[in-house]
Amino acid sequence: MPVLTELDRLHVVLVATRNPLNIGAAARAMSNFGLSRLRVVNPYQVAFREARSAVGASALLASAEEYKNVAEAVSDCTLVVGTTALGHRELQHPLRRLEYGARLIRKRLASNRVALLFGSEKVGLSNEALSHCHWLMRIPTCQEHISMNLGQAVAVCLYELVRHAKLPHQVLKQEPATAGEVERITGALLEALRLSGYLNPGSAASAEGKVRRLVRRLSLSARDSEVWLGILRQIVWKCGQGKR
Amino acid sequence: MPVLTELDRLHVVLVATRNPLNIGAAARAMSNFGLSRLRVVNPYQVAFREARSAVGASALLASAEEYKNVAEAVSDCTLVVGTTALGHRELQHPLRRLEYGARLIRKRLASNRVALLFGSEKVGLSNEALSHCHWLMRIPTCQEHISMNLGQAVAVCLYELVRHAKLPHQVLKQEPATAGEVERITGALLEALRLSGYLNPGSAASAEGKVRRLVRRLSLSARDSEVWLGILRQIVWKCGQGKR
Repeated sequence: MPVLTELDRLHVVLVATRNPLNIGAAARAMSNFGLSRLRVVNPYQVAFREARSAVGASALLASAEEYKNVAEAVSDCTLVVGTTALGHRELQHPLRRLEYGARLIRKRLASNRVALLFGSEKVGLSNEALSHCHWLMRIPTCQEHISMNLGQAVAVCLYELVRHAKLPHQVLKQEPATAGEVERITGALLEALRLSGYLNPGSAASAEGKVRRLVRRLSLSARDSEVWLGILRQIVWKCGQGKR
Repeated sequence: MPVLTELDRLHVVLVATRNPLNIGAAARAMSNFGLSRLRVVNPYQVAFREARSAVGASALLASAEEYKNVAEAVSDCTLVVGTTALGHRELQHPLRRLEYGARLIRKRLASNRVALLFGSEKVGLSNEALSHCHWLMRIPTCQEHISMNLGQAVAVCLYELVRHAKLPHQVLKQEPATAGEVERITGALLEALRLSGYLNPGSAASAEGKVRRLVRRLSLSARDSEVWLGILRQIVWKCGQGKR
């Protein structure tokens, strides 16, 4: 996650949003990715009120700032980026893929405020709104289903913006088993194979190499190999019972 | 956009989803990113029916396959990946960041089917569902607001999976075992553990998840899993003899 002060410089601007669920979803995605500055421009009033009063509406939504037009909403930013599904509309702006655009935005955030605009569910950003943008950014969706749900588009854009941060990478590094441990397992397995009749006395010797390779392909960790050894010893004990 | 056949090998699996809007949102994100194979496990029936009958419900949703449990839903896949918000739950699986996990998934998709599991809105994936997973993947959200909306989480994961224009064409040396084969081995091993007395009837149920994970950590190939199944069946037969 980038330094908090940098994310504080990014303003998500929802323009003429109509559905309260989408306003709520945008707010939630912002929370998920550590952003807090939401601005709404000329929202459908009922939607904005509903989103604010919804159960569980966040502090983020409560502190959202409302503007009458895009010009006012972006006036303190040095970079204004529009998002678009880019269907039929003629291209009047440089259009950047999300990955590259996000990189440029991150650079700018190091020292300046940036506005990221999302248009209404039906028609996207108006030409007037687009005219305030320095350039446009597009999520690489497939040609047949270009248009994304607003809340999902916000989530994907913000993910791309913050994903480079260093977060703990919690892979359990498992200590691998030693060759000695693996060989004890091999021995127990061979014993189980003999006692269960899987191997007969004639073929047992020639099978040893095969079984040894079979066990090594398991790439056991030290911890798991203890478990497997316990299992095999119990099986050996059980299979050998009849003989006593 | 990657080659269609590779994306056709990715199955999005929604487990115990309750909200029809979320099923619809997941389907929409799949369409946006060129995926078509949706599987649902044990959905809240009303939700599934509502999502299917919604205005504008896609062909994708109409062709979604319904399963009774996770085992059946993933049985033809060789890699099963769970998604998690990872709040309080104890970590039983390797946990990978979305970027790195997506890379591993793309590699596997070059030649095999992969299942990507999403849990219910409230509680995520159950421990039973998690026990079918090879590893888990986490979207790097911020600590205070970890939990994402389901539709948004699906959108972000799929974006990360397809954002690279080219999928690597890496052929795996060993054909990996399918989840169905691995589950058959798990079943035979559990039977052997019971019959040998390693597990007593009281502890058997609670051990099932542990054993399931233990087997999945072996990363068996298709060929080796046949051998292991033969071995375990012989052991089961032998250990069960005393009872007849």
